[in-house]
Amino acid sequence: MEVTALKNDLDLEAVGEAMHRFLVELYPICRSITGEGVRETLRRIRQHIPLDIHEVPTGTPVFDWTIPREWNIRDAYIKDPAGNRVVDFRSHNLHVLGYSVPVKATMTLAQLKEHLFTSPEHPDWIPYRTSYYKEQWGFCLSQRQRDALDGQPPDTEYEVCIDSTLEAGHLTYGESLVPGARSDEILISCHVCHPSLANDNLSGIALATYLAERLSQCTLRYSYRLVFAPGTIGAIAWLARNEGHLDRIRSGLVLACVGDAAPSSYKKSRQGDAEIDHAVEHVLTHSGDEYALLEFSPYGYDERQYGSPGFNLPVGCLMRSPPGAFPEYHTSADGPDLVRPTYLADSLNKLVAVLEVLEHNVGYRNLKPKCEPQLGKYGLYGALGGKAEGRVPELAMLWVLNYSDGAHSLLDIARKAGIPFAHIKRAADALHEAGLLEALVD
Amino acid sequence: MEVTALKNDLDLEAVGEAMHRFLVELYPICRSITGEGVRETLRRIRQHIPLDIHEVPTGTPVFDWTIPREWNIRDAYIKDPAGNRVVDFRSHNLHVLGYSVPVKATMTLAQLKEHLFTSPEHPDWIPYRTSYYKEQWGFCLSQRQRDALDGQPPDTEYEVCIDSTLEAGHLTYGESLVPGARSDEILISCHVCHPSLANDNLSGIALATYLAERLSQCTLRYSYRLVFAPGTIGAIAWLARNEGHLDRIRSGLVLACVGDAAPSSYKKSRQGDAEIDHAVEHVLTHSGDEYALLEFSPYGYDERQYGSPGFNLPVGCLMRSPPGAFPEYHTSADGPDLVRPTYLADSLNKLVAVLEVLEHNVGYRNLKPKCEPQLGKYGLYGALGGKAEGRVPELAMLWVLNYSDGAHSLLDIARKAGIPFAHIKRAADALHEAGLLEALVD
Amino acid sequence: MEVTALKNDLDLEAVGEAMHRFLVELYPICRSITGEGVRETLRRIRQHIPLDIHEVPTGTPVFDWTIPREWNIRDAYIKDPAGNRVVDFRSHNLHVLGYSVPVKATMTLAQLKEHLFTSPEHPDWIPYRTSYYKEQWGFCLSQRQRDALDGQPPDTEYEVCIDSTLEAGHLTYGESLVPGARSDEILISCHVCHPSLANDNLSGIALATYLAERLSQCTLRYSYRLVFAPGTIGAIAWLARNEGHLDRIRSGLVLACVGDAAPSSYKKSRQGDAEIDHAVEHVLTHSGDEYALLEFSPYGYDERQYGSPGFNLPVGCLMRSPPGAFPEYHTSADGPDLVRPTYLADSLNKLVAVLEVLEHNVGYRNLKPKCEPQLGKYGLYGALGGKAEGRVPELAMLWVLNYSDGAHSLLDIARKAGIPFAHIKRAADALHEAGLLEALVD
Repeated sequence: MEVTALKNDLDLEAVGEAMHRFLVELYPICRSITGEGVRETLRRIRQHIPLDIHEVPTGTPVFDWTIPREWNIRDAYIKDPAGNRVVDFRSHNLHVLGYSVPVKATMTLAQLKEHLFTSPEHPDWIPYRTSYYKEQWGFCLSQRQRDALDGQPPDTEYEVCIDSTLEAGHLTYGESLVPGARSDEILISCHVCHPSLANDNLSGIALATYLAERLSQCTLRYSYRLVFAPGTIGAIAWLARNEGHLDRIRSGLVLACVGDAAPSSYKKSRQGDAEIDHAVEHVLTHSGDEYALLEFSPYGYDERQYGSPGFNLPVGCLMRSPPGAFPEYHTSADGPDLVRPTYLADSLNKLVAVLEVLEHNVGYRNLKPKCEPQLGKYGLYGALGGKAEGRVPELAMLWVLNYSDGAHSLLDIARKAGIPFAHIKRAADALHEAGLLEALVD
Repeated sequence: MEVTALKNDLDLEAVGEAMHRFLVELYPICRSITGEGVRETLRRIRQHIPLDIHEVPTGTPVFDWTIPREWNIRDAYIKDPAGNRVVDFRSHNLHVLGYSVPVKATMTLAQLKEHLFTSPEHPDWIPYRTSYYKEQWGFCLSQRQRDALDGQPPDTEYEVCIDSTLEAGHLTYGESLVPGARSDEILISCHVCHPSLANDNLSGIALATYLAERLSQCTLRYSYRLVFAPGTIGAIAWLARNEGHLDRIRSGLVLACVGDAAPSSYKKSRQGDAEIDHAVEHVLTHSGDEYALLEFSPYGYDERQYGSPGFNLPVGCLMRSPPGAFPEYHTSADGPDLVRPTYLADSLNKLVAVLEVLEHNVGYRNLKPKCEPQLGKYGLYGALGGKAEGRVPELAMLWVLNYSDGAHSLLDIARKAGIPFAHIKRAADALHEAGLLEALVD
Repeated sequence: MEVTALKNDLDLEAVGEAMHRFLVELYPICRSITGEGVRETLRRIRQHIPLDIHEVPTGTPVFDWTIPREWNIRDAYIKDPAGNRVVDFRSHNLHVLGYSVPVKATMTLAQLKEHLFTSPEHPDWIPYRTSYYKEQWGFCLSQRQRDALDGQPPDTEYEVCIDSTLEAGHLTYGESLVPGARSDEILISCHVCHPSLANDNLSGIALATYLAERLSQCTLRYSYRLVFAPGTIGAIAWLARNEGHLDRIRSGLVLACVGDAAPSSYKKSRQGDAEIDHAVEHVLTHSGDEYALLEFSPYGYDERQYGSPGFNLPVGCLMRSPPGAFPEYHTSADGPDLVRPTYLADSLNKLVAVLEVLEHNVGYRNLKPKCEPQLGKYGLYGALGGKAEGRVPELAMLWVLNYSDGAHSLLDIARKAGIPFAHIKRAADALHEAGLLEALVD
């Protein structure tokens, strides 16, 4: 089977712009772990790629968890006596503590105080807070807004309103399968539960969407399963409903925070030396760019769930800034301007390079393992010996021949040789065509 | 079983002073590998802790060795013609070559010369020398004393006297068992054969004594066996007499040179990756202090014997300055002032922390291994998500849950997480109490 | 069996000079992968050591290769219209493209151009080029010579002559066996196919020759097989004809570029952790000189063939400058002056030290594995304890005793202890003589 090169004719600049436009389109939607925001987001993804939208009813047990009530919100504000909305959900959806229960009351600042959250170290930014599993209501506001409230007479009464519902409903997630020649799957997962936060994780959503679009245009060896699910509870629900099929997952990546200016970073799967770990490290090493490799740890994004000890799936996490490692993290400063088309495009470029490696990472057996074969006989050798010139392809062939011993895949050989995978693959193709290699059964 | 925290109410400053006072008390006694000095030392230890005193008769074969004759000494001197003691055992017991046979003679310096030992690089210090297995007599003196002798007329005659006995008798060692819930033992060993040398090894003796006192006040998981024996021959005798029971030793530490100002150092057991090696390295890493880790080598203190290839016991050596690594080593300058209460206390503090790790280093199995459990359900999760704040305990819980897979002990998890053992243990306790973990049978 | 110390009475300075004289003697001969040049070289080696000269007929299949026609050359030149040889084989044999087919013609520079090879970055040097497996003819010349031709009128006609033959004949290689007590062999291999190039590889030829001479004067544990063969095709032919006996090769070294001023370098065998790899690394580490260790790679010299996956023999490559890593590589500047007697002698010195290690690298079992034996009883211990003085030999004994546990050879112990092999061996000899060790059957 001839696998299509994923990078062929990939116009990174144009796709970078398109991903960013999609991110800008999704930005105003008020998402949470359940509710209309997620549904609307998934519907818009479905305008780009085929997507099955799954609804899991409130109360459904998923491992140690239970699907919570569905949360929806129409409006929320704090009004001063003059009727001015001093905090207004309509101006930014981060203003409401996520999963706030409804409230409609009049109270002084003293009474309101414990429901207000600010980020004093960045006085202009609204922090992002939620309270999924404890009934609460609250407002997040900038420290400057809070200071203004503090400047009012203490007996000032405010009208406080959160027009939300928290009722039996569903948790919603989306799933897209791009079929390949094999039933083994590569899992691509991103969380879709954050309201107006751009890098975390509209960037991951946009990247996964455009990746799926690209994959659907290619002839693939592996099947690709893209999961767009609310963080934690969504991934847990997906795992619970797919527990019987997890053995088909050969590799996986969580995509998150892939649009900011930081260098690419990769957090290894719990296994630590899985094929996906080697593939990403190889691509980053040869990218010519700075990058960071992080060991697995049981916090971060949904690699926590995929890498829980009962599953231990080979799923790593591709990022730029890791969570918490950029000052705008979980604040209103994580807006569309923090993410740039060029960084989204760079993340796509690296992601596609990783998948190219996985798609073509097969093993061969050298059919002439005693001494080197006479490459010249097969037209595989520059006729002139002497000074080494332009011998990189020949070098790659020698590496492939020497290590195609039944114990090394092409990626293993590329890593040992310190030669980019693409060169090693070109060499293997030429040797295979010349009848010097036989493919190992996977 | 609830194990007592060894550190509870441990007044380090007071215990440091007490250890130093005990060291000062033991300092004047003239110990050797046999004889009354060792016996007297053990009797004084027995004023602090229960101690069995064992006597092994001269001539007893112990592996490749034989218990030597017992050495005792009453007096020794070199007198000048005027009757002045120019070298006097009563002023410092290092003045006599250890195990000197008796002598009573008159001779010139020329005849005496080959029996005199000095340390020219430190002209005021008396070196420490012994001749256990070759019959000899001699005096150790400062280079200044020697220079004074050289300044006398060459025909000056000296009265030389060593009033020692070397006769059939016994080798003496002491042993104390602090029983715990299990019959597995932690071995604590220190050498008691050095005359007036403070850091090497009255410091180790004082530390072992006060540790045993402390242990006897606690409810323990392991039993602790403290061995106070002469170096080399004493440890060999102990091993020979306990050969049938060595499989009960789960971990062990030799304590030596634990009172000087150098940072703590640890020489690994021959196994190199035993639980004791990991425990000490973990405690030193998180101590915030400088420290040194040394690989096992077959010289040093009695870890040489415990780590001989026929036993290969997991016994390391806890020190501050390693032997030979401080200028005062094996000279009269290794006196009570070289050892400070604060360093003894610091050594005790680290030793106790190591034993805390061993006492509590158990393994658990995560009973909810598929995805993370919902910690909030068990009251184990801060209700507010969002910005990571004060999440260290939650982090520790996530590490414990993820790696309680049957292959990792709490210490393994603490090392992987880079989190102090005490936090990991607190997390495990909370999770166990919540029913999320079951203890593995050891 | 008492093995002779290879270094005894080895007059390195004299042997260095002798090796260099031999190199100067061989330098003018025009060698190639077949033909009289190789034969003449082997005949001169045979004046120093016993040597079997093998002739493999043209057309013989050797694995994937076929022995090529034999190439011989009498003369070659480019003459200008005045009859001057502007390029003359008689002045330097590198002037002819190796394996050039015969040619006799008159042509202009335009027609000649594609047959001319220069090295523009070093305008005074003649490059070394060959065309073994594609029929071609050509001349190699300095860029200055080429510039002079370019300065002539374009219609100048040159007489071009290569008086060579390319006919059925033989490939020739030489083999010398220095028998030892055991039939296991150490393989020493060097390539003999280069024309007038001194470091690459007359240096290797001279070193192998004088090594064999030295070995023949010694009582040896291993047998040594020295192979003097043309690069690639010669090694392949040797492997094909000896395939049934390769299991007797216990270790091996390719010798190449061993005479230049660069520090010694060692390229590991494909196995990477074979005894030869450990032995060379140990010797270089303790040499006090700079050195370089290189991982195996499937290009370089004939370690490529010995280390092909069908054989995977433990054969590394001892060099100074690796191929391609010195500017004179494969040019006329690699002449006898690039190689100095002192560097040849240093390479011999290190090579002999490596073979000393292999010859004496046996394993012992400690017959008193429980505690240390009482070394004093066997006369193996300085009688005076106390300050550590002159205790290196005792230290080496303790290392040997502790690790002679059936799992460690003397080289393993020397590496673990960081003590030179010779000290460890001396200690083992003393302990063995004292009855404390028994030799393990290899």
